[in-house]
Amino acid sequence: MKIAIDAMGGDFGPTPIIEGVVKALEKKDFTPYLVGNEKTIKELLPKKYHSLVRFINSEDVIGMHESATEALKRKESTIYKSIELLKSGEVEGVVSAGHSGASMSLATLRLGRIKGIKRPAIVTFMPTIKKRYSLVLDVGANVDCEALNLYQFALMGEVYAKVVLNTFNPKIGLLSNGEEKSKGNSITKEAFSMLESFDNFIGNVEGGDIFKGEVDVIVTDGFIGNIVLKTSEGVADAIGRLIKEEVRNSGILQKIGALLLKPVFKGLKKATDYAEYGGAPLLGVNGCVIISHGKSNSKAIKNAIFQAMKYIENDVTNKIQESLKVH
Amino acid sequence: MKIAIDAMGGDFGPTPIIEGVVKALEKKDFTPYLVGNEKTIKELLPKKYHSLVRFINSEDVIGMHESATEALKRKESTIYKSIELLKSGEVEGVVSAGHSGASMSLATLRLGRIKGIKRPAIVTFMPTIKKRYSLVLDVGANVDCEALNLYQFALMGEVYAKVVLNTFNPKIGLLSNGEEKSKGNSITKEAFSMLESFDNFIGNVEGGDIFKGEVDVIVTDGFIGNIVLKTSEGVADAIGRLIKEEVRNSGILQKIGALLLKPVFKGLKKATDYAEYGGAPLLGVNGCVIISHGKSNSKAIKNAIFQAMKYIENDVTNKIQESLKVH
Repeated sequence: MKIAIDAMGGDFGPTPIIEGVVKALEKKDFTPYLVGNEKTIKELLPKKYHSLVRFINSEDVIGMHESATEALKRKESTIYKSIELLKSGEVEGVVSAGHSGASMSLATLRLGRIKGIKRPAIVTFMPTIKKRYSLVLDVGANVDCEALNLYQFALMGEVYAKVVLNTFNPKIGLLSNGEEKSKGNSITKEAFSMLESFDNFIGNVEGGDIFKGEVDVIVTDGFIGNIVLKTSEGVADAIGRLIKEEVRNSGILQKIGALLLKPVFKGLKKATDYAEYGGAPLLGVNGCVIISHGKSNSKAIKNAIFQAMKYIENDVTNKIQESLKVH
Repeated sequence: MKIAIDAMGGDFGPTPIIEGVVKALEKKDFTPYLVGNEKTIKELLPKKYHSLVRFINSEDVIGMHESATEALKRKESTIYKSIELLKSGEVEGVVSAGHSGASMSLATLRLGRIKGIKRPAIVTFMPTIKKRYSLVLDVGANVDCEALNLYQFALMGEVYAKVVLNTFNPKIGLLSNGEEKSKGNSITKEAFSMLESFDNFIGNVEGGDIFKGEVDVIVTDGFIGNIVLKTSEGVADAIGRLIKEEVRNSGILQKIGALLLKPVFKGLKKATDYAEYGGAPLLGVNGCVIISHGKSNSKAIKNAIFQAMKYIENDVTNKIQESLKVH
């Protein structure tokens, strides 16, 4: 399996990316196409792996604060070259922790959308108390959505849950401001009627339902999905800080208590750690594109590569195409 | 000060409401108008308080799962009568833990909107790591908003932060999918331009910023605000459950650790407890209406009554009217 990896994108430069590739190579058999400054990459990559990878030199990187429209003009950039490798069929997937807007635009415009899909969507994995993930989409590709877009997100999320997460009959929920059918804004109310054609549509779900693990695919527009994702991270972060501060301001017994509870907090951290799944697939384009967090560490990159492999092995692009025909 | 209290609304019936009224009466001087079944209320209220309250008999309660439109027809209901007491000037405020849609509809239609305000909004209090609240509005009154509505929410939130929370120069943020001005959906982009007329508008803020305590008033539509509120509660609840489960499945030392940390968790619970502020004011109507959670306990009711008193003391309705004139 051949996977192009944007080796220079991401907030921390190439180091965690190359380390992540090494970790992935230690576990699984694939050929990474490392796109970036060849000299820098060769210095970071231990010699013994040089024969296992391909080096695709690129001297240009789209900076995190540049405009996504830049991406289309700069044909020498790491992300442009990575997507072109996929378009030409040289590789089967792309992983990038670089400028996500640039990755999305290039994927959509250069690879094209799956026939019939109006808008691609980014799907993310939310931890639940059932210790398995629920899928939320879209989390950032589309800020203004129509009902048909939400309907198609449900379709793509269902395919992903079925073929990649092996969920037998994934339950689909529409994110809303109440469970009753009468709840919703004008767009979600229209989407509700369309979604009733899914046997496994359970109706409206609320923000809190995301973490209960009773619904597998949660559909919303990219504006709200992004806010939900960042709100969730913000609450978890705030609780961690408040606990630390309370412990700091309390007595010796509480400090001992906190030490004894370290394994518990570590377990919690693992359950909610982004790096555990590593990347968010962009569903609806003609090919496997995994978008990783700019702040990805090596573990996140390793798992993003594994995400790409699962996408490719399970032929998600074609499965979405097939599902469109029967819906 | 005279405050009407819907004594029968709420998921747990009149008991926590009457208990909350007693707690409030022990601390502050005011006259509760208890609207509900007089016989039931008299049985629940200790004799010594009977002379301090007024009993307004009502035999009808709008159930939590009835349609909000019911509220307008059922003129004998507790919430209808409570709002009428405010409209006629017999009381200065209303507190209800009953059907929130019914409370909003009746407040809007019977009291009317403040002149110039297009849509009222429910403002809620979010805990932050700075141990003070940020205000988020709207959290449920309006599912489809225009830019002008968001602009007016900012104006009303600013007034509330200034006059009730005594924030000298409250910072206003617009909830969006990124900090840059270019981020947002079509509505928030339009609202952004309008909000630039506020000196203290700090631009777009993200979901995570709600809990950092660096922004005082966060503006969004009621559909998103409701999802954000329930997502936040859901994350906090899920983390609590995951910690409990990890402790249960771990060794004796961790169990001792959890016991020692009890005061810390208690402190955290207090910092994030809804009952600490008790109720969400409905801003933009002609009068003081505090909407409490259906699941309010007596402490929440007590604090909701105190919210109402602060609203009345600080003359929030007129302050909003005045702010509209200068904006």
